[in-house]
Parts: sequence; structure tokens; C-alpha cells
Amino acid sequence: MSHGDLANLLLALAAALLGAKILGELCERLGQPAVLGELLAGVLLGPSLLGLVPLSAGIFLIAEIGVLLLLFEVGLETDLGELLRVGGPAMAVAVVGMALPFLGGYLLTRAAGFPTLTAIFVGAALTATSIGISSRVLSDLGLLASREGQIILGAAVADDILGLVVLAVVSRIAATGSVSVWEAGKAGLLSFGFLFVALVAGMPLGRLLVRVVGRASVRGILVAVSVAFALLAALGAQAASSAAIVGAFAAGLVLARTNRGHEIRDAVRPIVDVFAPVFFVSIGAQVDVGYLNPAVPANRSALLLALGLTAVGALGKFAAGYAAWGRVRRSFIGAGMIPRGEVGLIFAQIGRQNGALPEPAFIAVVLAVFATTFLTPPLLKALSPARPRPA
Amino acid sequence: MSHGDLANLLLALAAALLGAKILGELCERLGQPAVLGELLAGVLLGPSLLGLVPLSAGIFLIAEIGVLLLLFEVGLETDLGELLRVGGPAMAVAVVGMALPFLGGYLLTRAAGFPTLTAIFVGAALTATSIGISSRVLSDLGLLASREGQIILGAAVADDILGLVVLAVVSRIAATGSVSVWEAGKAGLLSFGFLFVALVAGMPLGRLLVRVVGRASVRGILVAVSVAFALLAALGAQAASSAAIVGAFAAGLVLARTNRGHEIRDAVRPIVDVFAPVFFVSIGAQVDVGYLNPAVPANRSALLLALGLTAVGALGKFAAGYAAWGRVRRSFIGAGMIPRGEVGLIFAQIGRQNGALPEPAFIAVVLAVFATTFLTPPLLKALSPARPRPA
Repeated sequence: MSHGDLANLLLALAAALLGAKILGELCERLGQPAVLGELLAGVLLGPSLLGLVPLSAGIFLIAEIGVLLLLFEVGLETDLGELLRVGGPAMAVAVVGMALPFLGGYLLTRAAGFPTLTAIFVGAALTATSIGISSRVLSDLGLLASREGQIILGAAVADDILGLVVLAVVSRIAATGSVSVWEAGKAGLLSFGFLFVALVAGMPLGRLLVRVVGRASVRGILVAVSVAFALLAALGAQAASSAAIVGAFAAGLVLARTNRGHEIRDAVRPIVDVFAPVFFVSIGAQVDVGYLNPAVPANRSALLLALGLTAVGALGKFAAGYAAWGRVRRSFIGAGMIPRGEVGLIFAQIGRQNGALPEPAFIAVVLAVFATTFLTPPLLKALSPARPRPA
Repeated sequence: MSHGDLANLLLALAAALLGAKILGELCERLGQPAVLGELLAGVLLGPSLLGLVPLSAGIFLIAEIGVLLLLFEVGLETDLGELLRVGGPAMAVAVVGMALPFLGGYLLTRAAGFPTLTAIFVGAALTATSIGISSRVLSDLGLLASREGQIILGAAVADDILGLVVLAVVSRIAATGSVSVWEAGKAGLLSFGFLFVALVAGMPLGRLLVRVVGRASVRGILVAVSVAFALLAALGAQAASSAAIVGAFAAGLVLARTNRGHEIRDAVRPIVDVFAPVFFVSIGAQVDVGYLNPAVPANRSALLLALGLTAVGALGKFAAGYAAWGRVRRSFIGAGMIPRGEVGLIFAQIGRQNGALPEPAFIAVVLAVFATTFLTPPLLKALSPARPRPA
């Protein structure tokens, strides 16, 4: 890497960070999630507009480290126990909320003339609710502790885990190049198997690691060793035919259950603050704004598909809210499940890399993720049940 | 960057982090600074031994980000006011402690038959005391607050600033390829000029930035914008013919004086914990252990030079202790100035990159840095004045 290359890369990083945070702040002020601003910053800074953030190997390296650490952090923030406590309704919402958008996305994409593998990837990309966006919107509305809020959170946690399994399954399908029930079943078993082995073998390993590190005194050893643990888990997942982010997420789940989980999460947080935006900016930078021009006949199919996916993605999750039972406002739960955010974009990114998503399908998925993310905050505000009185 | 390349890079990062922390901890237990362990981990993991950490573009990118953030953090921890308070003796120790090792290193390198530019770089690499190592050893001995400890700290802070100016001067000389008093003076003026302009223009800019960011609410904006500020300052320094790390350091000095300096430092710390070790490991990985074999005639000159540089580097700093006045133990002050650590390695690294340091001179400097770093803790322990009674 030459001196000039390095300088260009540092400039791109600085631009990505500033753009992500400025547009993220703007989006939050407009009542939208910050991740939307980071994506828009990418569109703006990317090759199709300002050209300040190139799609270079260096940017992809930083972006990859960013997304692995982000999923590691999500794992650190996810409590397996919480999911079990919220119980039945959350599980029902999660499962229905994954099945309906998957089916809708699959059928729509097939109807649009794309191959089966593409349709599977598009459907899968619509399955997972963004736990980050949902929880931030709920907290903005002061409804995190409401019964509806708890069900949304629980279902989103289940979504996160199931969504990653779905990702591993479709990644496996994309890698082997064929789709059979046997392949799908094997991929599912391998992924569940990896997650199971990683968690079962990881728990004592994580505790051992924290105990050994606890006897050490050198500066920064806890966070450095934790990050190394996450990277090795990511590589392990990849070696087990699963996705690297599944491994990083599992590493987070494991370390969250040690007695220094909070400390690790606090240390990982600023690292994610600096590196994860580069991931979202790099995703946005891949959107060629030329595709948004409906005057070009070739774009119309991508735009139409994006519209259809948004409708199917939003309605599928909304309907899933009605799978919940008890004295709850089911429409609010459904609306809370709509935003896709990170996980959908990770699907899009991986599908683009392994060739499962051709350009128009990739653009359509990214636009649908944008749109579902955009829809949520005003919808949740409109449907919110009475705000609980302060105790 | 292919899938396999990325996997190899993530493996190298994990290995570097684990190796750095394990050997760092071991070194601390043996009474040595952790940075020594990180360097040794690099030697062990590098191409000349285990081959787990390659000298690839990806590793150099992460290492560069690591060293920029490290210098940013050092700047955030440096208090310009403190230097002025410790006053006269500290300045005298700093100036004498830079002049003697520079002269000794220069003359020795010239005598060994190397060109003038190489001799200047070697001399310059011996000028700066490692503030990190000195302060850690002092704190281990419980003598940070002693009069001697304060003078060592003050002189080390002065060293850090002057050392970076010296680095800018010699980098400028290396870039223009010639050495004249006029060039040296111009380089000095440019560097001082950059530092002056960066600090004078930077102070209000830093305060403005912190004020604007203070009105924002999006997650992680303070640390992300601060890091972007440091990267832009590094690029600015490079554009002003100074070194990138001078800019990152100046950005730290500037933000340290805002009302959120502590908060920024706390957030930058874990990022440095994860990325700076990659820098030290990458330095160690560049040492070809074949050069340590004295049976090869060609190596003898490098090893002899290393021995001479260690002697000159240690004695020059030790003698500088006697430039201090007042009722202080001057031998202790001199010993406290001996470790070179980070800054000397950064000189070595830059000299190797810009061609000023041919292989044997590079190795000699790195070995001398190792040796001075190694010498310090036992020496300081042996010479320490009576431990002050707890108040």
C-alpha cells in the first residue's frame, strides 16, 4: 500500500465518519433512526455521487471489522434468558413475522422473473427485524417497559437469532449452488449445530478466558482478548460453513453471560461507534443512484420490485403482530416489528458478494430496507397505546 | 480482497492481539514494560519465525490506524500546562537528554560508515523518551508524585513534543533527499509552524466541534467525530510536510483542553487497546531473526552498532539527569529518561519506509530501543530514592 493510497483511505474514513454522524443526527432529529442517515451518507459520499468513499479493499476491510464488532456487540447485549421469559406471544410473533415476509418476498421475486436462489435470498433478507432500531424507537416513545414493548423486544431478539440461522442456511445454499430439501436441511442442521456447539463449548471457554484474563494486569487485555475471541469465533463459523457474523454474535452471547460481560460491552461500544458506521456507509456507497431514475426502462423492474418488497415486508410483519395474545395492542406490536436495518443489509451485502443477488435485486432489497426503516417511527407514534404513567 | 485474504487477515489480527497480550502480561510479570512483550510477539509471529502475521497491506493499514490513534491518545493525556509548571529542571533534562543521544548516535553511525541521512535518522530515533513506559514504571514504584517523578514526567512530555518536531524535521530532510542548514532550518520552521498553526487554529476549532457535538444526541458522535478530527489533522500534517502522527498528537492536545477531553480519552482508550498492539506486533514482525546470528559476518556490524547505540542512548539520557537542579536524586532522573519505546520505533518505522534506514541500521535501532526499554525497570528500582511516606 503506497503512501498516497493510505492517505486516500484515511480521508475516506474521516469523510465516512463525519458524513455518517452528521446525517445520522439529522435523521434522528427528523424522527428517523440514525442508521438511515449513515446509509444516506454512503449514497452521497459513494462513487455514484461525490466519490469521496471508494469501494476499495481497505474500506471493505474496515467495514468487515465494523460489522463483525457490531454483531459481537449485539450478542453482548442479547440476553438468552429474556427471550425465554417473554415466552409464547413473542415467539409466535417472531415465527409468523419471519414466515410471511419470507413467503411474500420469495413469491414476488419469482414472479418478477428472478431465479430461485435470488428469490430465497430476497425473502430471507426480509425476515429479521432490526433489534437496534426497534429498541431505539421504543425508548424514544418511553414504551420500552410496556407489555407491547417487551413482546416486540422478545420477538426481535428471537428474530435476530433465527435470522442469523436463516442467513447461514441461505449462505450455505448459495455456496453449494443448488437448492434441495436435503441441502436446506443439512445447512439448517450445520448452522444450528455450529450455534449449539459454539454456545455449549463456548460458555465454559468464555468463563475460563475471563478467569484467566482476570488474573492478568496488563492494560487493555480484557477488550483485546475479547475481540480476538470474537474474530476467532467468526473464523470458526466460516470454517463450519456458517457466516462469520454468526460466530461474532455467538461470541457476544457467550461473553455476555460471564461476570465481566458489562465491562466488555462498555469497552466494545466506542470501537463499534467508530467502525460500524464505515460498514453502513460502505453499503450506501454501493447504491448506484443511476438506478433510481425511472426514466431508464431497465430500472423500472428494480423500483417496482422495491415497492412490492416494501409492501410485502411491512404488511407481513404488521400481520404478525396479530399472532400475539393477551390484553395488548396488536397493531402496535406489528408496527414495531417492521424496521429491518442492519440484518437485512448484511443479507444484501452477502448476497451481492456471493452472487445470489444480481444488481437490481440488491438495489431493491436495500431500498426496501430503507423504506421499512423509514416507515416505522411515524407509524409507531401513530399507533402507540396510552403512555404508562410515571410510577 | 478475496474471501480467503480476509479470513487470513482476521486470523493474523486475532493472533497479533493474543500474542501481544500474553507476552505483554509475561513481560510485566518479569518487571518489564508490556510494550516489550508486544514487540517480542511480533518477532515470534512474524515471517521469520511462525509466519502467522504477514507483512501485508491489510496489516499495515490496521497498524497505521493503531499508531495514529495511539499518538492521538498520548496527546489527549498530555497537559501543556503541566510542562510549564515543572519548569526549568525538566526543560534542561529534556534538551540535554535529546542533544547527547543524538550526537552520540550520529557520530557512531557515521563512524560505522553509514551516510549522513542514516546517521541523522539514527540519532533522532534515540532522542525521545517513552512517556508511556516512564510513567508506568514510576507508578509501579509508587514514585509518580515524587519531585524526581514530576521532573521525569515533565521532561518526557517535553521530549514527546520536541521528539515529534525532530521527527518532522528528519522526515522533511529524508523527503527532499539533501541535508543543508537551510533545509533543516526550513523543516524546523515548517514543523513548528504546523504545530503552532494547528494548536492556535485548532483550539477554537476543537471547542467549536465539542460545542456542536454537545447539541447532538446520536449515539457515538463524540468519539466518531473526534477520531475523524484526528485523522484529518494527521492528513493536514502530512500535507504540511510534517508527519501524520504529529497531526494526530496535536489533535489530542487540542481536544484534551476542551471540556469533554476526559470523555474522549476514555472512549479512545479501548480502541487503542485493540489497534495499537497491531502496530507494535507489526514492528516486531519486521525483525528478521536471521540478523541476530553473529556467526554471519554481515550481521556483526548491525549487532555492534546496536550495542554502541544502546550504550550511547542510555549514557546520554543518564547524564542528562545531572542537568537537573534542586534537592533531587539526579541519577534516578537520568535512569527514568532511558526507555525509548514507541517514539523510537515510530522513527525506525518511518526511516525504513522512506529509505533513510537501510536494513542493518533499522535492526540496530530496533534492538537499541528494545535494550533501553529493557534496562530501565531494574535500574530505576535500584536507584530509587526513599519512597515517600503515605500522607
